[in-house]
Amino acid sequence: MKVKVVTHILEANDRIAAENRKLFHESGVYVINLMSAPGAGKTSCIERTIKELSSKLKIGVIEGDIAGTDDAKRIAKLGIPVVQINTGGACHLDANMINEVLVDLPLKTLDLLIIENVGNLVCPAEFRVGEDMKVMLLSIAEGDDKPLKYPLMFQESSALLLNKVDLLPYTNASIEKIKKNSLSLNPKLKIFEVSCKTGEGINKWVEWLQSLIK
Amino acid sequence: MKVKVVTHILEANDRIAAENRKLFHESGVYVINLMSAPGAGKTSCIERTIKELSSKLKIGVIEGDIAGTDDAKRIAKLGIPVVQINTGGACHLDANMINEVLVDLPLKTLDLLIIENVGNLVCPAEFRVGEDMKVMLLSIAEGDDKPLKYPLMFQESSALLLNKVDLLPYTNASIEKIKKNSLSLNPKLKIFEVSCKTGEGINKWVEWLQSLIK
Repeated sequence: MKVKVVTHILEANDRIAAENRKLFHESGVYVINLMSAPGAGKTSCIERTIKELSSKLKIGVIEGDIAGTDDAKRIAKLGIPVVQINTGGACHLDANMINEVLVDLPLKTLDLLIIENVGNLVCPAEFRVGEDMKVMLLSIAEGDDKPLKYPLMFQESSALLLNKVDLLPYTNASIEKIKKNSLSLNPKLKIFEVSCKTGEGINKWVEWLQSLIK
Repeated sequence: MKVKVVTHILEANDRIAAENRKLFHESGVYVINLMSAPGAGKTSCIERTIKELSSKLKIGVIEGDIAGTDDAKRIAKLGIPVVQINTGGACHLDANMINEVLVDLPLKTLDLLIIENVGNLVCPAEFRVGEDMKVMLLSIAEGDDKPLKYPLMFQESSALLLNKVDLLPYTNASIEKIKKNSLSLNPKLKIFEVSCKTGEGINKWVEWLQSLIK
């Protein structure tokens, strides 16, 4: 019974995700669904990406949070079109939430739309929103045992930003273990070691991202 | 329609949670539902708590993870009765999952049962499992903006372990901001600043916990 309900919801979601995707393609905008646990640094990563790429690409952002508008305010400060979705309790964004706010973005003028999902290492990976690519962050401070404990997001993502590498000397985490276990789940996963605080490693990530958008 | 389904699931869950609670009370075991985002240090906190209290109290543990048995192995090494639940994708423990594994624990000999929920700052807060108290962890490395963005868990918890304070000098997080915003959501919340890695602050937490169990 429970599984039936979930399947139903996922099928309905996928239909709307396909509509979003069609609209994105017609508008010529490349769309990233950015996911991670709470506090892994999604908003900081978006800020860094904007700073590196906004002279080359027109970027827009959708911020997803259960409550509050802090993240959207941070992005708006950079002069970037941004819409905040408050899910009001729901632990992930779904295709319909995205569909409803697209009228508030100048889609046809954008090259890149970054959708920041709700901070959650589980549920967002189950819901397509019409994106071209899923990207996930993992903070070094979360420890090196996350890939095998939360496998779906690692399997669904095209790229993994291993963030907060500046904290590495103060943790017990092994980057090699994270890489090995992530790649065992998803051999095609592109992994970037970055610090969105210091800027370390961001250049490789934005170069790769830019190469996909042309 | 969607809300209706959720209400239905929550009501069914609450009935089983009440059964669990009755069983816990009859067995004389105090039960904690321990929640946090992935990698905030739940298992390390349980290890520290066991080391401090196992000479005074009989402790048992239920480990909840989507996949894997790493956490249960860590607890078993300490000679503590432990059961691992693998949710197989589900992002939280519910009362029925707990109910099904209780036969595998020597409930009547235990004083304290710690249930480690799936790492998720959202959904676990919605599902009672029959606990006496919800306790949450927040890692300093997750940043100081989490209370207002993920309010429900802060509202539902009786205590907050502010973990990884050893990382404080290397982050931009403000403990005062976390405390202020947590208490604005839940004025009764007991807050403990700890490092489950170094052991700092653990004594205050275990003293308080022990005072509840008599």
